Amino acid sequence: MQVHIITIGKELLIGDVVNTNASWIGQFFTEQGLECTRSVTVDDDAEAIVREVEFSLNSADITIMTGGLGPTHDDVTKHALCDYFGVELAEHEPSRAHIRHMFEKRGIPFSSSNLEQSMVPSNCEVLFNKKGTAPGMYFAVNGRVLAALPGVPLEMKHLIRDGLMPKLTTDFGLIPCYYCRYIQIAGIGESTLSDLNIGNITDYLNGRVSLAFLPGLQGITLRLSSYADTPEKARQAAMPLEEHIRSKAAEFIFSDLPEDTLQAAVGRLLAGKNRSLALAESCSGGLISSKITDVSGSSAYYMGGLCAYSNRAKIDLLGVDADVLNEHGAVSKPVALQMARGAARRFNADIGLSTTGVAGPGGGTPGKPVGTIWIGFWSADTHFAVKATLFKDRLVNKERSAIIALDILRRRLSGIDSFPYDLKPEFA
Amino acid sequence: MQVHIITIGKELLIGDVVNTNASWIGQFFTEQGLECTRSVTVDDDAEAIVREVEFSLNSADITIMTGGLGPTHDDVTKHALCDYFGVELAEHEPSRAHIRHMFEKRGIPFSSSNLEQSMVPSNCEVLFNKKGTAPGMYFAVNGRVLAALPGVPLEMKHLIRDGLMPKLTTDFGLIPCYYCRYIQIAGIGESTLSDLNIGNITDYLNGRVSLAFLPGLQGITLRLSSYADTPEKARQAAMPLEEHIRSKAAEFIFSDLPEDTLQAAVGRLLAGKNRSLALAESCSGGLISSKITDVSGSSAYYMGGLCAYSNRAKIDLLGVDADVLNEHGAVSKPVALQMARGAARRFNADIGLSTTGVAGPGGGTPGKPVGTIWIGFWSADTHFAVKATLFKDRLVNKERSAIIALDILRRRLSGIDSFPYDLKPEFA
Repeated sequence: MQVHIITIGKELLIGDVVNTNASWIGQFFTEQGLECTRSVTVDDDAEAIVREVEFSLNSADITIMTGGLGPTHDDVTKHALCDYFGVELAEHEPSRAHIRHMFEKRGIPFSSSNLEQSMVPSNCEVLFNKKGTAPGMYFAVNGRVLAALPGVPLEMKHLIRDGLMPKLTTDFGLIPCYYCRYIQIAGIGESTLSDLNIGNITDYLNGRVSLAFLPGLQGITLRLSSYADTPEKARQAAMPLEEHIRSKAAEFIFSDLPEDTLQAAVGRLLAGKNRSLALAESCSGGLISSKITDVSGSSAYYMGGLCAYSNRAKIDLLGVDADVLNEHGAVSKPVALQMARGAARRFNADIGLSTTGVAGPGGGTPGKPVGTIWIGFWSADTHFAVKATLFKDRLVNKERSAIIALDILRRRLSGIDSFPYDLKPEFA
Repeated sequence: MQVHIITIGKELLIGDVVNTNASWIGQFFTEQGLECTRSVTVDDDAEAIVREVEFSLNSADITIMTGGLGPTHDDVTKHALCDYFGVELAEHEPSRAHIRHMFEKRGIPFSSSNLEQSMVPSNCEVLFNKKGTAPGMYFAVNGRVLAALPGVPLEMKHLIRDGLMPKLTTDFGLIPCYYCRYIQIAGIGESTLSDLNIGNITDYLNGRVSLAFLPGLQGITLRLSSYADTPEKARQAAMPLEEHIRSKAAEFIFSDLPEDTLQAAVGRLLAGKNRSLALAESCSGGLISSKITDVSGSSAYYMGGLCAYSNRAKIDLLGVDADVLNEHGAVSKPVALQMARGAARRFNADIGLSTTGVAGPGGGTPGKPVGTIWIGFWSADTHFAVKATLFKDRLVNKERSAIIALDILRRRLSGIDSFPYDLKPEFA
């Protein structure tokens, strides 16, 4: 079954707002096993809206339209649909009561333009909008469907998940025969993962089983998906490839959840093993601390961190030896180790983790160019430092050094003794 | 003049990639004074591509198409265009030499599919792609223009800025008569800024002068724009509104640069006044430190920071009085003040800035619900703490407390004695 998307609004056309609604809708219906083949954006212009509705109702099974349902003069979607279908607006009483209630609850005066929101084309079935004031509209036309929804992402997603999809399942007998797994990978680049680890997977792939590499800041998300006549057959079709990937890339996998983060995975490991963490950050500047504390409940295992941007702070607050600092420089293995030890001691934590490096764009020398980073790890039984050679860009270097430090911590806590192929550990 | 956008690729339709190319192109041409009226995304499907090209060449002056120019079998754009125009592919010798050179420089073997990239429809004029291997193509058709460009953002932007736009200026006599100013605002909500500060601006606005409110994490960016017959007239048309906004919202304006950040503005103020900063973060968890160190050169004024997540760390490392902590609790005015003082003393800085609060989702009490935040400021001559009542969401509360703290610092350093209307300072 084919899906078309029509998004309405000048803000999308002139680039004030990036069209994340269209990508969300495309992803949602792909995951239901439908095929999204076209997405168009037009202005709040009745003629353009009618033209696109007509085209899509003639070529796609399901058309999802968002936007242009607000209370102001420039929202024309409902009037355009009335003209197209040759019907009038009619009041939807439950929506009217709901809108009135929402305004009363917030103590906001109620105007006639708000009431107008409860008027819908008389030939539509209303998808009740619990999260806002613009009702969703469902039009069944010659065995095809047009859904017109508000453009506010929260309301649009609610109406698709809780209103439209159950209705499509009933009306079209749609059963999701789609299987989808996410595998989250850290510590390896996309091409190395593909070429050296996963290898040639042509035999596993066909029109019904596919594998997408989605690179992000913290690593790569693999999306393995398949279609079949039943959900169970879809799962079985994908299974051999899934097992292949898990066996070839085991040490790099940190999660099976699509929205998961490395800091959340590390947090679960620390909590599960009842170990506490402290940080001493120089080149990462507090970013690791901020990531760790993004995780709710992190105060159970995170004792605190120190951003030691000056040599003075490294000596006074972390107990780094002034002579060692002078001899080796701040960006060095012994300083990384002493910083990690200092963090663990100062905060009374089981593990100390440190970063020191040249984030750039200034501060590089021939011996220590921009992108030279040392990461230190200190616990009662293991002390080591790892050197990474990163890039020219300051923000990229901060992010990468944070990710590498978190991944090293994840490996240690998971009992993985090896290191990613591009890092050289030196044990103290 | 009307612009249409055609973006090609399954990854856009199924939501693997958000279509930021379309928003960039829309914004670029809007800023050149052209009107972007339609944007469509289709699969790598020759029939769909031809249908959209035909529609846009019949209804828009300029059509920008991106994607589907890669070297693999699923990139069909060039063949679709050949079919549509009834021409053959022909080799473009300079592109061939350029591609060969790029591969040689990187030491990558050169295959026949790479050579194929230098083939273009014989009726096009090539827009030379210095940054990649797929040439841009310019078709002039009955006084209208179709530009087919690669989908890689860096290459697409290069070809539009350096290839297409100069050509349109020559061929169409396009002169940018567009004036655009960005005004960056912090410390005030969108509706309050609009209703109470800027007020009714209907008299300033007309079809040629417009004002957009673009809300973001750190505040609101105002985009003031106008069109006229000449650039100077456009500037003058916008001037009265710009002066009105600057006079009504002066204390909230932190920058005139569209991509600027609050931490960069604060950094310029600290460097300019030769003042140094230290941080003591609890609820913001290192986020302020990370933002400050995002700015290149921040080591000149940032001494360092401490993320004190436990009471122990607040007492031992920041010198917070244990009795005060017990009496008032960690989330309190006296603790915020002592943390700020401790940061300044420990790092030997002119200014200490602190946060302590209930970020959530857990940890709230009836007296101190989730979202209760105190921010402390300590310098030799001024000590105060500010209470903010924020939200239920942990990440939002971290971000908002960081932004509020940076904005308080900006105001102090700018000699603004007042505070944003929703904050209550208490001086020690």
